[in-house]
Order: sequence, then C-alpha cells, then structure tokens
Amino acid sequence: MKKYNVAVVGATGAVGREMLKILEERDFPFDNLKLLASERSEGKKLTCKGEEYVVEATTPESFEGVDIALFSAGGGVSKKFAPEAAKRGAVVVDNSSAWRMDPEAPLVVPEVNPEDIFKHKGIIANPNCSTIQMVAALKPIYDKVGIDRIVVSTYQAVSGTGKAAIDELRDQAKAILASEKAESNVYPYQIAFNVLPHIDIFFDDGYTKEEMKMVNETQKIMGDDSIKVTATAARVPVVYGHAEAVNIETKEKLTVSEAKELLDNAPGVRVVDKPEELAYPMQIDAESTDDVLVGRIREDNTIEKGLNLWIVANNLRKGAALNTIQIAERLIEG
Amino acid sequence: MKKYNVAVVGATGAVGREMLKILEERDFPFDNLKLLASERSEGKKLTCKGEEYVVEATTPESFEGVDIALFSAGGGVSKKFAPEAAKRGAVVVDNSSAWRMDPEAPLVVPEVNPEDIFKHKGIIANPNCSTIQMVAALKPIYDKVGIDRIVVSTYQAVSGTGKAAIDELRDQAKAILASEKAESNVYPYQIAFNVLPHIDIFFDDGYTKEEMKMVNETQKIMGDDSIKVTATAARVPVVYGHAEAVNIETKEKLTVSEAKELLDNAPGVRVVDKPEELAYPMQIDAESTDDVLVGRIREDNTIEKGLNLWIVANNLRKGAALNTIQIAERLIEG
Repeated sequence: MKKYNVAVVGATGAVGREMLKILEERDFPFDNLKLLASERSEGKKLTCKGEEYVVEATTPESFEGVDIALFSAGGGVSKKFAPEAAKRGAVVVDNSSAWRMDPEAPLVVPEVNPEDIFKHKGIIANPNCSTIQMVAALKPIYDKVGIDRIVVSTYQAVSGTGKAAIDELRDQAKAILASEKAESNVYPYQIAFNVLPHIDIFFDDGYTKEEMKMVNETQKIMGDDSIKVTATAARVPVVYGHAEAVNIETKEKLTVSEAKELLDNAPGVRVVDKPEELAYPMQIDAESTDDVLVGRIREDNTIEKGLNLWIVANNLRKGAALNTIQIAERLIEG
Repeated sequence: MKKYNVAVVGATGAVGREMLKILEERDFPFDNLKLLASERSEGKKLTCKGEEYVVEATTPESFEGVDIALFSAGGGVSKKFAPEAAKRGAVVVDNSSAWRMDPEAPLVVPEVNPEDIFKHKGIIANPNCSTIQMVAALKPIYDKVGIDRIVVSTYQAVSGTGKAAIDELRDQAKAILASEKAESNVYPYQIAFNVLPHIDIFFDDGYTKEEMKMVNETQKIMGDDSIKVTATAARVPVVYGHAEAVNIETKEKLTVSEAKELLDNAPGVRVVDKPEELAYPMQIDAESTDDVLVGRIREDNTIEKGLNLWIVANNLRKGAALNTIQIAERLIEG
C-alpha cells in the first residue's frame, strides 16, 4: 500500500490535535508526518501513532516533498501557505473559510459530493462545521424528493471558536457559580448561562458570516443554486457538538417513516428518534461519535411538503478534522 | 381607589415569589393578600409591600371573599381549585396550562388581546411563556401586514421548569467543572453544557406538548386559526430568559426598517438591534427587564415576504408572573 507524506498545519490547535487523533484512529497511511504551526508553537512535542513529533514553524519550504497538507490554522495562514503547498505538489485540504467559495476549489462533504474531490487544482476546501452536518443529513432527502427551502436555527458549541473559548466558558461558569464576576475576552458578552445570537462578523443586511456560510456553502456542496436557505446562528454554552433545528420544504412529499428509512441507510448518519424512549440527539452524545445524529423528525403540516429535524454532530470531528481526513482518504483511494 | 382582596396560589414557587415582587413593584391595589400553597408549605412566611404573610394550605374555603385569585401551582391544583374560587365570586387568572384551551376561558396577553379579558366566566388563562413573548413581538406585524406562517425554534431557560431545575443546572455545572459525575433528577439527561430538544411530554406525531402550545395558543390569542405555526422547543443551560429564532412569512411585504419602526412603537416591546454595535437581545439582559426584546431583524429572501427575528424575554416575568398581573390590572381597570 502506498504511503504518503502528510503535513498538518495548525497542529497545536483544537482541530489540529483532533486531526492527529483521527489519523491514528483511522490508521491513515502516512510515511512521514510533519507538524506545522506558528513560530510561537515551534518546538512543542505531539504524538501520533506512538511516535513523537516536534512542531515546526510553517514556511513555504515546509511543503517540499509533502503529498497531502491538512490545514487548520485560520484563514490568513491558509491564504498565505496553501498556494505555496500546492505549488510544491501537495494537495491541500483546508479547514478554514479562505478557499471555500473559490470557484477553483472543490468544497466537499464525502457523503454528499465525493466526485468533486477530483476536480481540485491543488486545494480542496472543507466546509463550515454547521454546514457539514446539515448537508450530510439532508443529502439523502434531497436525492429522493428534492429540497426547495431550508430554515435553520443553530445551537453551536464554543469549541468551534477554539481552545480559548472553551476555557472562557468554563472560567465564566466557575465564577458565576461562586457569585463572582465573569470576564469576557473571547466573546463580546458572557457565554456561560447565556446564548449569543452572533457567530462571526455581521454584514450590512444584518446576517452574520456564519449564517451566510450555511446559505452559500450548502448550494455549492449540493451543486444546486436553487436550494433556498435562511439561517440564524447562535452560540450556546456547550463545549462540544453543534445542534440544529432544521425545517425543510421538499419538492415531493416525504413522510416521517420514509425520511427515517432514508436516513437510516445513509452513510455517516444515525437516526436517534424514539421519543417514547426519550431518545433524541444531544450534544453530550456527539462527543463520542463520528456520526451525524438526526432525530425529532416530524411532519410540518403548515406546508404541504414539510419536515422538521434536529441534527447534532461533533463540530471538531465531523464538523472539521474528521471531514478533512475523510476527504484525504477519498483522494488517495482515487 | 378601590382595593381588592387578592389570593396568590402557589405563592412559594418560583413564579409565585415573582408575583409577590411584582405586586409590590407595581403597587397593585390589594386590601388583603392571602398566600396559598400546598400543605407542605403551610406556615412559611413571605413578605410583600413590607408586610409579612403566613402561607396557608389551599382549600375551597380559602377563596371566600377573594376578588382576584392568581394561580401558579401547576395544572392539577388549577383544575381542582380554580372552579372553587370562581364559584365563590373570585376571578381567577391562571398561569398553568389547565384552562388555556378551554373555550370558556380567555387566553390573554394584554398587549395582544386585552378585550378578551372581559369575556371571562370566572377563569382567565395566562399563556405559555414561550408563546407570550412571541405573540407580543409579532402582534404589531400581524396587525400591519398579516402573518401566514411562523417557523420557531426556542432556546428556553431551566427556570421555566422551576426551582429544582435551577439547582440541578448549577449542581451539574459545578460537578462537571470539578470533573465529577453530574446527576440528573429533574431532567432525563444532563442539561449543563448540553441542549435538550425536549420540553414537556411527547405526542404520537413526535411533537412535544410545549411545541403544540405554541401552535394552538398563538391561534387562540391572535383569534385567527389561519396562522400556521410549526415549532421546535429546546431547553438550553441558561437560568433565566427564553430566546426564540422566529421566521415569519407575512401576507404583505414588510421591510426591516418598517418592522423596526412598528416594533419600536409597540407596547411592552423593545428593539435591540444594532449589529454594528454588537447590540442584540440576550438572555442575560432579560433578567432585569419586563420588555420583550427583539433584534436580529433580517429580511428572509428565500421567500417573497419573509422576516427573521430573535425574540428574548424573562420567562418568569413577562412569560408568567408579570403577564398574569397585567391581566389582573386590566381586569380592574375595566
């Protein structure tokens, strides 16, 4: 079996560390592994498959001889270094938002549009976490009956922001429980015991960038600009896992039992929907699974062809590191 | 000025205590105040307007001579004692779900359908918390351009469940932060650092009773069975305040600025919507206000006449105790 020279850029971050775990868990066939990060992290040691690796500062030359470069170091780093890696023959799978809407970069969820992987020109983009889990769950429905319109409200975990946000939530919760003042540095307001209807920057029309990612990325991944999506993205005081209340209008009628059967047979999707046993998807259950969990599937009788669903996934794994590595796996399968 | 004999049933509960605070804050014109609760709470002492009151066990005879009986002691108590109070000449304003859909009981949000108050036959029902804040915010829009359909996802605080749930959230958060096991007694699963897409019981069609309350109560309060509502209700790890992501389809087009102007002039509603200053409604801000906060107002371009809104209010005050007392105030104004 062919083995590959792999680089992980942003190896010391929350998603980067998750990538190392997943490369090990899935026994990704790498020959050499290069861990890259900012100068600040240079010299740090991390392990993967029992080997210790020393983190190096990222330079254009870091990518000499690299076959696959997995990026998760923010949009700025990706903008700067992904072309350098591609120029040197690496295929970049980038977890930032930098290349997602670039017409030359495929935007891929392997369960949805694996064929797009092979249209790359050196850079493949990994979608936004909240989009990945939604399209993974909706694809089987889309294929069967078509989808006209999606109304989605998100309940997103702080780990999507990074390690500092996890610490902030915990520190704030501790302070508030001790009747002390909670300090906000990562978010503009207290996130512990609160909900922020605000993720990423605001545009002039009042939508946030996170909300527009769900609109634009869904259309690009599905390869269908006619799918209408309107989103409200909110941050909840949860550490791991994003939840989404999703209302869809399909082109043809789909009953709840048909939807459950479709989703039961969909790759990467697990139906958790037995209300009589109080079984429904929850973020605490997403911590330990790679599946996209779908439940609370209900007919929406306010329209002729409508469904409500509750979709939950681990935002650091399926929403980021896992999807990135699944793209790389498909790429080398060819 | 005429003064009234008032009874508060369920005086020792979370909403009951809030009622006492509000009777005092708003200087409600009572002559005598009777605090009623279960036998378990008999003899407890509570204060209102500087006077100490001893809690009595509720019996049918407790309501002799009572003009206004404010109930918040659960559906069972209301079913049993509200008719007894009414029979003795009291007007009951009931915060439980017991009488809400009874055709003889008006269901009232004073900003929305104050005229219904005077149709009572002894019992007036106070709507569900998540419905109150939604209809209070949507009424001005409904009056101006009509509303066809509402898709709502809720982010509800644990205080809606009661004091035991507040304690459970805090205890669980403390345990988890100390890497100890979190115990769940009030909710079926951990609520700290988690979201439960489950409020009240499940019906056979997969909807919860909480979700159906939002459907049926909205139609009854608005006096319009043609308003279509589909809801997903979720409990978030927040102590006070419910938030709602609300998508509406109006009958006539309403722009964002028109919606803001309408809401700015609506009683009991406050627009908090300056994204450029990061001003949007949050649950932590609902703790200290009686207003329904509305923000994140955006045109939904997936339909011809659509808007998205983020609606937040204090579930114990406007969602319960305050609305109940506002009904009583209107009642005595005549």
